[in-house]
Amino acid sequence: MYLSRFYLPLMKETPADAQIISHQLMLRAGMIRQGAAGIYSWLPLGYRVLKKIEQIVREEQDRAGAVEMLMPTIQSAELWRESGRYEAYGKEMLRITDRHDREMLYGPTNEELVTEIFRAGTRSYKDLPKMLYHIQWKFRDEIRPRFGVMRGREFLMKDTYSFDLTEEAARKSYYKMFVAYLRTFNRLGLKSVPMKADTGPIGGDLSHEFIVLAETGESQVYCHRELIDMAVPGSDVDFDGDLEPFVRERTSLYAATDEMYDEKEFEKVPEDDRITARGIEVGHIFFFGTKYSAPMNCVVSGHDGRNVPVQMGSYGIGVSRLMGALIEAYHDEDGCRWPVPVAPFHVGLINLKPGDEESDRLCREFYAKLQGAGIEVLYDDTPARPGEKFARMDLIGLPYQMVVGPRGLATGHVEVKERHSGERIELTPDEALDHVTGKIISALVPA
Amino acid sequence: MYLSRFYLPLMKETPADAQIISHQLMLRAGMIRQGAAGIYSWLPLGYRVLKKIEQIVREEQDRAGAVEMLMPTIQSAELWRESGRYEAYGKEMLRITDRHDREMLYGPTNEELVTEIFRAGTRSYKDLPKMLYHIQWKFRDEIRPRFGVMRGREFLMKDTYSFDLTEEAARKSYYKMFVAYLRTFNRLGLKSVPMKADTGPIGGDLSHEFIVLAETGESQVYCHRELIDMAVPGSDVDFDGDLEPFVRERTSLYAATDEMYDEKEFEKVPEDDRITARGIEVGHIFFFGTKYSAPMNCVVSGHDGRNVPVQMGSYGIGVSRLMGALIEAYHDEDGCRWPVPVAPFHVGLINLKPGDEESDRLCREFYAKLQGAGIEVLYDDTPARPGEKFARMDLIGLPYQMVVGPRGLATGHVEVKERHSGERIELTPDEALDHVTGKIISALVPA
Repeated sequence: MYLSRFYLPLMKETPADAQIISHQLMLRAGMIRQGAAGIYSWLPLGYRVLKKIEQIVREEQDRAGAVEMLMPTIQSAELWRESGRYEAYGKEMLRITDRHDREMLYGPTNEELVTEIFRAGTRSYKDLPKMLYHIQWKFRDEIRPRFGVMRGREFLMKDTYSFDLTEEAARKSYYKMFVAYLRTFNRLGLKSVPMKADTGPIGGDLSHEFIVLAETGESQVYCHRELIDMAVPGSDVDFDGDLEPFVRERTSLYAATDEMYDEKEFEKVPEDDRITARGIEVGHIFFFGTKYSAPMNCVVSGHDGRNVPVQMGSYGIGVSRLMGALIEAYHDEDGCRWPVPVAPFHVGLINLKPGDEESDRLCREFYAKLQGAGIEVLYDDTPARPGEKFARMDLIGLPYQMVVGPRGLATGHVEVKERHSGERIELTPDEALDHVTGKIISALVPA
Repeated sequence: MYLSRFYLPLMKETPADAQIISHQLMLRAGMIRQGAAGIYSWLPLGYRVLKKIEQIVREEQDRAGAVEMLMPTIQSAELWRESGRYEAYGKEMLRITDRHDREMLYGPTNEELVTEIFRAGTRSYKDLPKMLYHIQWKFRDEIRPRFGVMRGREFLMKDTYSFDLTEEAARKSYYKMFVAYLRTFNRLGLKSVPMKADTGPIGGDLSHEFIVLAETGESQVYCHRELIDMAVPGSDVDFDGDLEPFVRERTSLYAATDEMYDEKEFEKVPEDDRITARGIEVGHIFFFGTKYSAPMNCVVSGHDGRNVPVQMGSYGIGVSRLMGALIEAYHDEDGCRWPVPVAPFHVGLINLKPGDEESDRLCREFYAKLQGAGIEVLYDDTPARPGEKFARMDLIGLPYQMVVGPRGLATGHVEVKERHSGERIELTPDEALDHVTGKIISALVPA
């Protein structure tokens, strides 16, 4: 992409209500723009990151055997009366009356709708197990939206629903999502720790929040040090095999958010291994049995021919929120520092002197060769001053910068900067191309 | 995808309110399910087609130089007061009041929001021209939603907005979209005819609807025969070059919907070349100058340093509606007949006798080899009877079927059926694989 053709409206002054660094950087780097409180437009740079996060989430859902679909944003109030949640949900639900005075709502979540779909299309235990998911915009009318996309009102969520005949089978579906979540956050470059979550009146041990540690996190968290750097299952993991060992390994050590914190239990962890930190919730998985299937009559005929309500679970990932979490984890005083798999472009190619014949020629050659190798390049072909170009490229935080100008070319060199380490090296054009291509291609292979 | 793991709830009885064939087939083939009047869930099979249509639309927008972003579904009423459309829009606009009693709405279109974004981020004529687009769900509260996804309330639309300094420059942006639309519909397998549309009080000749001919179309259309089969510009078309000849070629022959029909003009077309038919509107492009930029003060400084409102156009494609149009164009009495580029899967692999060792082995081999070649396979590994399997595969309409069973294997053969022609041939397994792979790969290369 040529920067002169792209749309990248940087912001010089950050609005005072942007309190955390991810919110500030997303505004300054022209990634989002607020339309109304807690409602954002995703400008081209930000949208590219959002799509990459979404695609990694999708690939890991597919790998785990979940099937993608899409439910609409607007739902009928009737369904929510069947489950009893229409009145219970309160003011966070955006309620709407259509032109025929029918009560509708903007879906804050989809348990009711997916249960209705499943009950209409499924008759027998032979059709189970199934996992369905979608990645769709949700709306929760937060009383005080804040922290940019971290606590917005209109937000993108991946939600999966599992359908099983027995609780034992449902446990297997739960484990699949548990492992898929570890893989997803790891591929995004985030260290996530599953923490036992409150199951409310349903009880049981099948509810976990996935927490990313970050200073600006909204929750206080307590966990065993070993959980932070534990290796995640590889891409060869067999989702039809026994996943319990992976789950057990992750759940046998202490980990809890303040909501579930038990001081006495935490003190059993050796003192040197106790981690107390702030965390951001990026995923939540939950087995809830027949909570919706029973009142909504979502049944299948069992082995004995009698109808039984299906056992269900739901599994959410905050896709738009993850973008904020990524910036919280990857930034410095100059701006974003994107990991390669989610970077809006992989390389920022800076032409210090557009119009200089040799600089133009080499930049065009780099651009063509990198794009040909599947590497995404943002080519700064604008007439801005070098200082402005450097600051802009640092701010938007592409993993590698290649700097081409007459002074370097006079000695046959270009400069390559790695944004994360800040390291700069002078290389010949061929070396620079090989170096950057090799680094990026290897970072794009999923673990 | 193994059918036993997929979610494909076929419907035996079509609801009486499904009047047109695309609506009936989408329900019967388990592609969509109605949530409320004019609001649909996209079940896995239908969602796969929708994503493919969306991706082709996206690729052609990118090729033409438009930059993708995403605006939210919920907008503030304030903006629409600035343009004067808030009161004017009437009951088709879904109006919403949030918990703080602020007036909001579910965007039926995005001229206001994109104008606000552009005015905030753009200062100078040097930043022009620009084209921004997004593919987002819209809501129009139709009084009588009908024809399934053809006239739904919640629908997926691609809308592009162009920003230029002068009307002459805007004309070039308009031509880019004109050519991009011809390419888009052609790649989808649809024959589209651009027809002059009403520009209302703005006037001028820069508004066209793109119409696909279909018996069930909502509009009566009149056009010159040559327009139907006119070749479209290839993938090597230079969007920075002069596109006017392509546009002129398409607009010099008579074409009009009933709204713009002029009997005397149509009679100047030689009688044998006069086509009178029904059509479905799938795209609409429109230059509207300063209609929004002037009242909303979206200005740039011009060459002389004085501020001028930008010249704008908008360009829509009904992405979800296209799915209905495709089925109207491609079906027979047994079901859908998807063109390869938008087919939910390319091959339906039918195992006539799961459990038969040799059938299972060959099916698994076919599956692995086809997937390895980038071909999408739906593998019917279920215990259903052969007749049910054939009928189901015909109904969902994948372009090729490969049928494997003990009887054929006894003589070393499998059957390949081309869904579109209905032609069946017996081939050895290796021949079958080569035949199907070759056909699909060549159909996937964009023209």
